[in-house]
Amino acid sequence: MRVLIVHAHPEPQSFSSSMSRTAVRVLEEQGHEVAVSDLYAMGFNPVASAGDFGQRADPDYLVYALEQRQGHQSGTLAPDIAAEIEKVVACDLLILNFPIFWFSTPAILKGWIDRVFVSGQFYGGKRFYDQGGMRGRKAWVTATLGGREHMFGPNAIHGELTDMLRPLLRGTLAYTGFEVLEPFFGYHIPYLKPEARDAIMAAFAQEVAGLAQRPALRFPRLEDFDDRLYPLAAAAS
Amino acid sequence: MRVLIVHAHPEPQSFSSSMSRTAVRVLEEQGHEVAVSDLYAMGFNPVASAGDFGQRADPDYLVYALEQRQGHQSGTLAPDIAAEIEKVVACDLLILNFPIFWFSTPAILKGWIDRVFVSGQFYGGKRFYDQGGMRGRKAWVTATLGGREHMFGPNAIHGELTDMLRPLLRGTLAYTGFEVLEPFFGYHIPYLKPEARDAIMAAFAQEVAGLAQRPALRFPRLEDFDDRLYPLAAAAS
Repeated sequence: MRVLIVHAHPEPQSFSSSMSRTAVRVLEEQGHEVAVSDLYAMGFNPVASAGDFGQRADPDYLVYALEQRQGHQSGTLAPDIAAEIEKVVACDLLILNFPIFWFSTPAILKGWIDRVFVSGQFYGGKRFYDQGGMRGRKAWVTATLGGREHMFGPNAIHGELTDMLRPLLRGTLAYTGFEVLEPFFGYHIPYLKPEARDAIMAAFAQEVAGLAQRPALRFPRLEDFDDRLYPLAAAAS
Repeated sequence: MRVLIVHAHPEPQSFSSSMSRTAVRVLEEQGHEVAVSDLYAMGFNPVASAGDFGQRADPDYLVYALEQRQGHQSGTLAPDIAAEIEKVVACDLLILNFPIFWFSTPAILKGWIDRVFVSGQFYGGKRFYDQGGMRGRKAWVTATLGGREHMFGPNAIHGELTDMLRPLLRGTLAYTGFEVLEPFFGYHIPYLKPEARDAIMAAFAQEVAGLAQRPALRFPRLEDFDDRLYPLAAAAS
């Protein structure tokens, strides 16, 4: 299996950064081939802009997704984007590893998505959800946060954490066709003693080792919607 | 009323950018004082990093929220962050105006939140949701998207758009104490003819003019949770 880990934490000594290294070690021990995009170490530029396109379909008015599609087709996307697309397309499993900032990804990772998940290759027309461009690949979100586990759940103060991460899990990964594995969350990390952190890291290593058996989340399938994407009766009931 | 519009679109001629200018015009006609942070025009840096802190509480290990709290208290945050905090604190209404990228904010706006919504001033300890640091202020999300309106709703293919925007509406704006007004969405914008766009812009101008009557969304209140943030019986029922 070819694995791409996209990691985004500003502190190389952080628990999140250790998780990235643990995942590399466990996956390589299993014989998988692992690539890492460490966005902070790369100084990755997260700002989608006109500068991302060597040629413009319309030089006078920027519609970002349109230029993405055209730039990808013609091979004129900025080299940092093209390199990341190549890594994602080559992988069987994409791992996004990050600390949760404002119940979502840090901006540097959001911008990696904005710039790399290009129209045409990742989605387009009716190619989304189970028909998305990345179908056949798996994706796994592994994240740390300050909050405690009991703050999340059906009646908890913040509701379900997977609901907070819906734009990522459903709106991005499932939308582009990935099979989205159940996420791994390390709760309350900045406030834990070393022994408690060690226990979570050991549990994480176990989850990495058992990834092949990890269940996937469920998302919409296009066959439950008509050509204009209105729900069919069965889906609406 | 003092209004801060934070606008994030890479194309100054875009419909989204016109919305920002329309909001300024209508609000100023009503006698309000309006400031605009146009993040692309400012070249705003969205990447949270060690460089955001002139002094470090811990120079050897970066815990971003801890350094934010300390840096804000000691007045040693990077000047671009300090300037934005001052604008938000001074406003009665914060408008976030942007094109929806991946069912959320463009990275440049996510990073504005990551860097500007500092621990201590915006939230901290038990100061969140209705007790958050921004209580007494209103926030309004005004966004454009490519999707059509019927793709969103209880049985629609993407579910509710406000559910997709939950980390922003609830996890960020409500969390920090803002009263969050019902968002305004401009659907299918890149694909509309000029007449249809004009009709949406006119409707938007009307909504801006009627903001004082705009209903707010409902979110958790701390009084429904105990000291450890477990739900009280009434909230769990």
